[in-house]
Amino acid sequence: MMFSITQLFLFVLSLKFVQSTPLAQRSTSYNQTLLPWERTSSTGYGTLTTQVQDNGAVLRVTINNPPINLYGVKLLNDMSQFLNSLVPGSTNVSTPAPKVVIFASALPGFWMSTTNPYDTATSNALFNLAVAAPALLRTLPTIFIAEIDGRATGSGNEFLVQCDMGFAGPDAIVGSLEVAIGGLEGNGGIQYVVRRLGMARAAEYLLSSASLDAETAAEVGWVNRAYKTSQQLTTSVNALASRIALFDAGALNATKTGIRANGPSSDQVAADIASILRLFPEEQVLLPKWLTLSQNLTANEFTLGALRSVGEVEKLYQ
Amino acid sequence: MMFSITQLFLFVLSLKFVQSTPLAQRSTSYNQTLLPWERTSSTGYGTLTTQVQDNGAVLRVTINNPPINLYGVKLLNDMSQFLNSLVPGSTNVSTPAPKVVIFASALPGFWMSTTNPYDTATSNALFNLAVAAPALLRTLPTIFIAEIDGRATGSGNEFLVQCDMGFAGPDAIVGSLEVAIGGLEGNGGIQYVVRRLGMARAAEYLLSSASLDAETAAEVGWVNRAYKTSQQLTTSVNALASRIALFDAGALNATKTGIRANGPSSDQVAADIASILRLFPEEQVLLPKWLTLSQNLTANEFTLGALRSVGEVEKLYQ
Amino acid sequence: MMFSITQLFLFVLSLKFVQSTPLAQRSTSYNQTLLPWERTSSTGYGTLTTQVQDNGAVLRVTINNPPINLYGVKLLNDMSQFLNSLVPGSTNVSTPAPKVVIFASALPGFWMSTTNPYDTATSNALFNLAVAAPALLRTLPTIFIAEIDGRATGSGNEFLVQCDMGFAGPDAIVGSLEVAIGGLEGNGGIQYVVRRLGMARAAEYLLSSASLDAETAAEVGWVNRAYKTSQQLTTSVNALASRIALFDAGALNATKTGIRANGPSSDQVAADIASILRLFPEEQVLLPKWLTLSQNLTANEFTLGALRSVGEVEKLYQ
Repeated sequence: MMFSITQLFLFVLSLKFVQSTPLAQRSTSYNQTLLPWERTSSTGYGTLTTQVQDNGAVLRVTINNPPINLYGVKLLNDMSQFLNSLVPGSTNVSTPAPKVVIFASALPGFWMSTTNPYDTATSNALFNLAVAAPALLRTLPTIFIAEIDGRATGSGNEFLVQCDMGFAGPDAIVGSLEVAIGGLEGNGGIQYVVRRLGMARAAEYLLSSASLDAETAAEVGWVNRAYKTSQQLTTSVNALASRIALFDAGALNATKTGIRANGPSSDQVAADIASILRLFPEEQVLLPKWLTLSQNLTANEFTLGALRSVGEVEKLYQ
Repeated sequence: MMFSITQLFLFVLSLKFVQSTPLAQRSTSYNQTLLPWERTSSTGYGTLTTQVQDNGAVLRVTINNPPINLYGVKLLNDMSQFLNSLVPGSTNVSTPAPKVVIFASALPGFWMSTTNPYDTATSNALFNLAVAAPALLRTLPTIFIAEIDGRATGSGNEFLVQCDMGFAGPDAIVGSLEVAIGGLEGNGGIQYVVRRLGMARAAEYLLSSASLDAETAAEVGWVNRAYKTSQQLTTSVNALASRIALFDAGALNATKTGIRANGPSSDQVAADIASILRLFPEEQVLLPKWLTLSQNLTANEFTLGALRSVGEVEKLYQ
Repeated sequence: MMFSITQLFLFVLSLKFVQSTPLAQRSTSYNQTLLPWERTSSTGYGTLTTQVQDNGAVLRVTINNPPINLYGVKLLNDMSQFLNSLVPGSTNVSTPAPKVVIFASALPGFWMSTTNPYDTATSNALFNLAVAAPALLRTLPTIFIAEIDGRATGSGNEFLVQCDMGFAGPDAIVGSLEVAIGGLEGNGGIQYVVRRLGMARAAEYLLSSASLDAETAAEVGWVNRAYKTSQQLTTSVNALASRIALFDAGALNATKTGIRANGPSSDQVAADIASILRLFPEEQVLLPKWLTLSQNLTANEFTLGALRSVGEVEKLYQ
């Protein structure tokens, strides 16, 4: 499938619309006995569950979309609905939204994987959801902490780097696979990787589609810090979240706003998104091989390798 | 006390005025036998003394405002007058101003503390001085080095991160306390912390109102480097200052200007200042407790703790 | 020689022209049996030779301008012609240009030295070439890797930091000497050093005209990484280049473009260049001494010292 300039234009327009439309108009499918941002395994597609901490000031969100936490149709819909539930004024409950949200994973080995580009690039609705999610991470007053102890690659990495901060456990692997598959870490990904690593190291890792272990990721600033055990990771993230959640919501929001003023302009994000669409036809040459090698995006040897060896990369190009 | 939109407008206007008014029109109280930038314990409020090094090319400024080097009425006035004495053309002495200024402290345990928000937020004159000081650090041709071997917190940290560089000794503690007290590290503080640490680490430390020891501060880039002893700190800072002071003033100025082009826009600084004023009513709920706990901003156990334990933070919210 | 405002204006105009004129109109002196970007010791001034790797997807360029790889008339002309040969559409060969270019040196102790400011500041043609070269590093689709195992100082450092990435061997020394000689690391140099080190560390090293060894350079981010042996350096750079060269050219180009969007604005680069011209008269006081001390820019003790000791710096000012 190809996109015309007109479609691109309409898409960029729709983008703005997605971000500014009153959330109250949206359909909601959450259980009415839960608070709007609460999820059980039976809400939505069941890929997100929530756990209230610190009397509701902190919310732990666990991603559970086996086998690899693919950021595909189900997770994308659940995540989108969840993030929208945090938009101020979007619901009519009087309970204040959590000040801090922690994103963790229920699956060993995976925090959040990529999308299936066929899904997002060929469905306007999904593409719009995929674009809108990081925008909400950037602009919502909520403080987002990524607690990663598995693979955060591709769109999963785009999501990670646009959280306010990220902490890694021993099994974390972060990185972009996009260039290897003929695409780019667009939608804010490149821009936030540059802000965490600087231009030269961003070039090294993004252009080579390399993925990094927790220790290296912390050294170059891809994550804030690496912990030696999963338990230390969770304990430390909880302690940080609890401390932040003590403070005045206005002070947190003003500080987040001041920090985020250093993020990319919406023009720059739109330019990167336009590159994604422009490259999609080229990408389609590689995608069938990628799907075959990964046995349709499941946790086989190829997927677990996260393109870390040149041998794996070469298979894509044979 | 509250601020109307009009007051805010007038304030922002006044800001520009403070920064651009000819300095020669200002009152000066320094001893006429000293050069305009020289200070003894009997000039101004006596919170700053100066020592000439390298035949006047380097000036060591020692902050001495017991018990905690509060950046309050006295220090703020002295600092403001001092910085203004460095403005080119502001005085009619023919001696060139020092090329390098080192800020150090006479008090063990403290480099420069916060302001008392009651003073600055309720007096337009003081607020304008507080706003104008970092602007002078950014724009004066002088190279400013912070030599810190004690607490640099709150406004003291805002001052530190807006110097051209900073070096830490073993007793240095840096950090923002603002969010914990319901405010934000505005007036350039957030923006320069982001430039030193990146967005993700700035978020971690600013949102949790954490303070860091010298070693950690150097690791994350909050200061340029940490030294193991106070003597190494002073020796190294003096050596660096002497070397810089050898060079042509035009070359130094052009380089500083090129570097500072990467600082925040004046619009962004103004937006953060507007947030300070907007949050002040909320902050007033916490301030009485803060003053009580710190025994009116003296060097008691609470102040020395610099909010490093959660227990201390919780006392503010009980 | 002085520059009037008009000359400066004409110069800035000419800049734009240099960067946008169709390259096909330029004279070429390369051997017609070679591909446009290939060089032997008999092409141009012979200061660059090339070696094809990875079936032409990677090109290793070796700088060889004894005794110190001065970035003077010869190297500047050769480099300019080489970079222009990579401009898409500039030649009519059907062979695609290399995706990755590695810059290495044939001379022990030197990667690329400074220009002779007399040459560049007093010849409009040379000055324009010097200005245009880093602009091509920033904008060409080629990925540029600096493999440095000797001195990269002055303009050589400006070139280094504007490559997409840089890796250092045990004999690498990086740094700016400009401030010591009365100038500034303009033409993008300051701006890219700030992007690699942050403002505070950029201030420390640029204002003191310090040069750093490989280990320190990697710690502060001046280069991506330091290797303990020259062989490890070359092996690792080749492996990285080979991996990048596997990928789709469009994906690489879109990613480089996204990263480079974080580079300085052309206005800022032009402002720094204007500072170079403004400072040149002051610089001329120091230049004769610099030429004498370096025995006309040869590899004597003074040159090898790279102004690392204060004693060396002081000789310039005696």
